[in-house]
Amino acid sequence: MHHRNALRLRCLGIDTYQHHVVFLRADCHVSVSEGFVSQSRVRVSGNGRTILATVNVVKSDLLADGEASLSEAARLALGVGEHDVILLSHPAPVESLSLMRSKVYGNRLDDKAMEEIVKDIVLGRYSELHLAAFVTACAGSRLDEAEMIALTRAMIKVGQRIEWRSHNGNRIVVDKHCVGGLPGNRTTPIVVAIVAAHGLLIPKTSSRAITSPAGTADTMEMLAPVELGIDDMRRVVEKEGGCIVWGGSAGLSPADDMLIRVERPLELDSEGQLIASVLSKKAAAGSTHVVVDIPLGPTAKVRTPEAAEVLRQRLQLVGHAVGLEVRAIISDGSQPVGRGIGPALEAYDVLAVLQGKPDAPADLRERSLTLASLIIEMAGSVPRNMGRQQAEVLLENGAAWIKFQAICEAQGGMRIPPKSGHHRPVLARHKGRVTAIDNRRLARVAKLAGAPKAVAAGVEFLAPIGTEVVKGQPLYVVHAEAQGELNYALDYVSTQDSNIITVE
Amino acid sequence: MHHRNALRLRCLGIDTYQHHVVFLRADCHVSVSEGFVSQSRVRVSGNGRTILATVNVVKSDLLADGEASLSEAARLALGVGEHDVILLSHPAPVESLSLMRSKVYGNRLDDKAMEEIVKDIVLGRYSELHLAAFVTACAGSRLDEAEMIALTRAMIKVGQRIEWRSHNGNRIVVDKHCVGGLPGNRTTPIVVAIVAAHGLLIPKTSSRAITSPAGTADTMEMLAPVELGIDDMRRVVEKEGGCIVWGGSAGLSPADDMLIRVERPLELDSEGQLIASVLSKKAAAGSTHVVVDIPLGPTAKVRTPEAAEVLRQRLQLVGHAVGLEVRAIISDGSQPVGRGIGPALEAYDVLAVLQGKPDAPADLRERSLTLASLIIEMAGSVPRNMGRQQAEVLLENGAAWIKFQAICEAQGGMRIPPKSGHHRPVLARHKGRVTAIDNRRLARVAKLAGAPKAVAAGVEFLAPIGTEVVKGQPLYVVHAEAQGELNYALDYVSTQDSNIITVE
Repeated sequence: MHHRNALRLRCLGIDTYQHHVVFLRADCHVSVSEGFVSQSRVRVSGNGRTILATVNVVKSDLLADGEASLSEAARLALGVGEHDVILLSHPAPVESLSLMRSKVYGNRLDDKAMEEIVKDIVLGRYSELHLAAFVTACAGSRLDEAEMIALTRAMIKVGQRIEWRSHNGNRIVVDKHCVGGLPGNRTTPIVVAIVAAHGLLIPKTSSRAITSPAGTADTMEMLAPVELGIDDMRRVVEKEGGCIVWGGSAGLSPADDMLIRVERPLELDSEGQLIASVLSKKAAAGSTHVVVDIPLGPTAKVRTPEAAEVLRQRLQLVGHAVGLEVRAIISDGSQPVGRGIGPALEAYDVLAVLQGKPDAPADLRERSLTLASLIIEMAGSVPRNMGRQQAEVLLENGAAWIKFQAICEAQGGMRIPPKSGHHRPVLARHKGRVTAIDNRRLARVAKLAGAPKAVAAGVEFLAPIGTEVVKGQPLYVVHAEAQGELNYALDYVSTQDSNIITVE
Repeated sequence: MHHRNALRLRCLGIDTYQHHVVFLRADCHVSVSEGFVSQSRVRVSGNGRTILATVNVVKSDLLADGEASLSEAARLALGVGEHDVILLSHPAPVESLSLMRSKVYGNRLDDKAMEEIVKDIVLGRYSELHLAAFVTACAGSRLDEAEMIALTRAMIKVGQRIEWRSHNGNRIVVDKHCVGGLPGNRTTPIVVAIVAAHGLLIPKTSSRAITSPAGTADTMEMLAPVELGIDDMRRVVEKEGGCIVWGGSAGLSPADDMLIRVERPLELDSEGQLIASVLSKKAAAGSTHVVVDIPLGPTAKVRTPEAAEVLRQRLQLVGHAVGLEVRAIISDGSQPVGRGIGPALEAYDVLAVLQGKPDAPADLRERSLTLASLIIEMAGSVPRNMGRQQAEVLLENGAAWIKFQAICEAQGGMRIPPKSGHHRPVLARHKGRVTAIDNRRLARVAKLAGAPKAVAAGVEFLAPIGTEVVKGQPLYVVHAEAQGELNYALDYVSTQDSNIITVE
C-alpha cells in the first residue's frame, strides 16, 4: 500500500455481465489526484495483470477510505480477491479507436487495421460503448468481401487454434454450422453422432442462445456437460472422434465472444460478422471441411433467395481465403424443424431420433441425414451419392446412438433433461389447414415462457405447414418452469395468436 | 410490500453517470420469478413514476432479502429514497428500436420514425448500447438533409420551447453559436454583452465541454452561476435582455443532452447531429435569428473549405425548415483565439476584453466584434455596414462591460475566477518563426492538465502563428491544480513538443 495509486479491494459481488467496472469513493485519494469521475476509463493492475475498466463513483459508505471494488468480471480477469492491492492509473490512448471511427465514417478497413481493432477488443480495451459502435459500423452489409476476410483472419489470429493429429489415416477435420433463425432444428448432436460413428473427426463447438430460445450448447447441456476447456475437448475428440461443446469455454474465438455480448442486446444482424464469427470458430477448431446450412424462409434469418445465394457464395469465398473448404447449402426455413423449442424440449427430440423411436420428428431426422451425408461425401470417405445411404445405416443400426452416448460419457456423463412443471396447449380457433408459421413470434413465445434460462421451458410445436386441424385441436403447447412465466407467454399469445400459426 | 414484484430500496449511492441501473440479489424472488439476469432491461416503478433500467446482479450480502438498489441517476429519476417501495416488471418492447436498426442497415428515417426514436430516447427507453448504436448509425455524413430536418424537428418537439414577449418593440430573438474545435475562442460572453447592451434580446444557452478543455458554460461558470432553470433564465433575460446559462439545466433539448453522454466517450463527429443539436437548442430557446461561426483550419473541427461550405449551407437550409433565420460564416480556424484554454484562463481573457485592458487578446476582441456586428445587422436594428461601428462603440464606452456585470448579478452574483496553483512554461527549443499550431494537441495538453474539471487548469497560449521567437522563449504555460496533473500534461508535451507548435 505504499504506492500512491494503490487501493485495497473490497469484494461487493456486483455482476455487470462481462463489463469491467471499478467502484471508487468520490473522495478517494486516487480519484482526486488523478481526476477520475464516473465513466472515466482507467487502467487497473493487480496480481501481475492489467485491465481497462469504467469508473462508477460510490457516494455512500459502502467503501471505506483506501478501498475500491471491482465488478465480478473485472475481479476474475485480474484474479484478485478481498483485501488484495490494486493500482489505478490513466490508460494509454487506445490507438485502434481512430480506425474504428474511420469505419463509422464509411472508410474501408484493411487487414492491418482490422487486426489492430480485434486485438484491442480481445485485450479488453474497448468499453461497451466502443464495442457497440464497432458492431453498428459493421452491421447489415457494411463490410465488403475483403473486410470480411480481414475480420475473419483477425479473429482467428487473436484466438487459439487447435491442431489435430491425423485420424484414421487422414488429416481431414470436418464441421457443420447452421446460420440459424429457425426454432428447434437441433441437427448438430445427431449429425456429430453419425459422422463420428462413420469414423471422421468432428470437434464441434457450438454457441449458446443469442436471441433465440436455445442454442445448440444450451440443448446439448441438457444431455452432458458442455463447458470443456481445450484440453478436455481434445481428450474427448481423440477418444471418440467427435464432441459437442460450448465454444465460449473453449475460448476458440474470444473476439467473437466479446462482440456477441453487445450484439445480443442490440439485436443487430451483420453479414460480415456472421461470416467471420462462423468461420473463425471453425478455423480455430482446426477444421478443414465445413458444411453450412442456410435456412431460407419468410421469417427465418435469411428471407430472400438472392440474400441466401449471396451469403452462400461469400461463406465459400471467405472460407477459401482463410484456408477452409466450405460447402454451403440453402434449405427450407419456412417453419421449425422438430417439435421442441427450448433446451430440454429439443434434447428430447434429439434422443428420439437417435434412439429410432417411431414418434421421432421425421423432419429433424431427414435434415440431420442430409447434412451428415454432405459431410461424409465432402470428406471423400465414400463415393459421391453414397453418403446418404451410409448415414442412414449408421442411424438405423444404432451406431450413431452408441457413439452419442460415448461422447456424452467422455464429456462428463450423460444426463436426463428435466421436464417442465407448467404447461398449457394453444388451440386452433377454427377448422382448417396450417398455411404459415411465424418463426420469430413462435420463438418469442418460447422466450417469454423462460427459455433458454428456464431450461425446461419453451414450445412443443404440433402443427407443421399442411396439417389439417379441427377447432380446439392443440397447435402447440407452451411449457414453463414457473406459473408467472407461463402467464407472460400466454398473455403474449392472446394478443398474437393468429399471427403465429396461420390456419386457413 | 404486498405486491409480489415489490422490493424495498436500499440506497448504495452508486453513480453510473446517467445510466439507469437496478441492483438485485441473485436469489431475489423477483429475479427468480421474472427471469431477470445481469443486463436484462426491466421496468422500475416507484413514487408514481416509471423508468427502464439495466439489471446488475449482486452476489454478496450487500442487499438483504427483499431489497434492491438503484444507481443515483435512476433513483433521482423516480424521486425515491431509502426504504421506499419499488416495483419491477418486464418492459413492453421498445417499438422504435426496429426503426433504429433499420437506420443501421442503411435505410432512411422519415419525420415520424425520427420522432418516435427521439421520443423513446427522452423517455429513457434506450440503454447505453442502443444510444451508441443510434449515434453511430447517424455519424459522419450518414443523415441526408431531410433526415437532418426530421431529427432537428423531433428534438425540438420533445423539449420545452420558450416564448418571449416582444422586447423593445420587436419580436426578434437573436442567438449565436460556434461549431467549435478551436481552443479558447470564448467570444460568447462578450458578444452577448455587446448585443444586449445594444438592446436586442439574446437568451444564450451554452454547453459544457464534450471533448474540449472548456465549454462556454464551464467558462461562464467562473464568472457567475449558470445552472438556471427556465424560470430563472426568463427572469434574467426579461431584466437584462441577455443571459449566458448552461443549456443542460434549462433542459431545452433533453434529447441532445442524452445523445451527448454517449457521443462524448465515443468521440464521434456527426454532421446531422451537430446541426440538429445546435438548431434544436436555438429553436427551443425561442430564437428567431441565429449567427453561426464555422472555424476552418487544418486541425479545427472543419478542415476543408468544401466541408465548411456544405455545413454552412445545411445550417441555413435546416434552420429555414424549422423556422429559423440562420446566417453561417466561415472563419479562420488555424489557431486558438485568445490566450486562455481552460475555464478560468478563458474567463480572464473575457474580462480583459470587456474591461478594455491594454493587454487584452486582440484576436478575441476582433472576432467578438465581428460576430456581434453580424447579429446587430441581421436583426435589422441598424443599417447594413453600421453594425461594426455600433458594436465597437458599445465595447469601448463600457456599456458592454456594465451590461455583462448586470447579467452576472442577475444570474446569481459575479465571481472571481480561481488561479492555478501549479504552472510551468514550455519553451521554444530554437530561434525561429511560429508557422503552425496543432489545436487538438494543444487542447489535449490542457485536458491532461485537468481542464475542464480542474477549472483553473489549462494552457496559456503565447505564440500565435507569425510570432518570432528566440530559443528559450515561452511558447505557452501549462497550468494545473495538482502537481500530478501538471506532470501528466508535461509528460505528454515531452513526447509531442514540436508537433504542437511548429517553429521554423
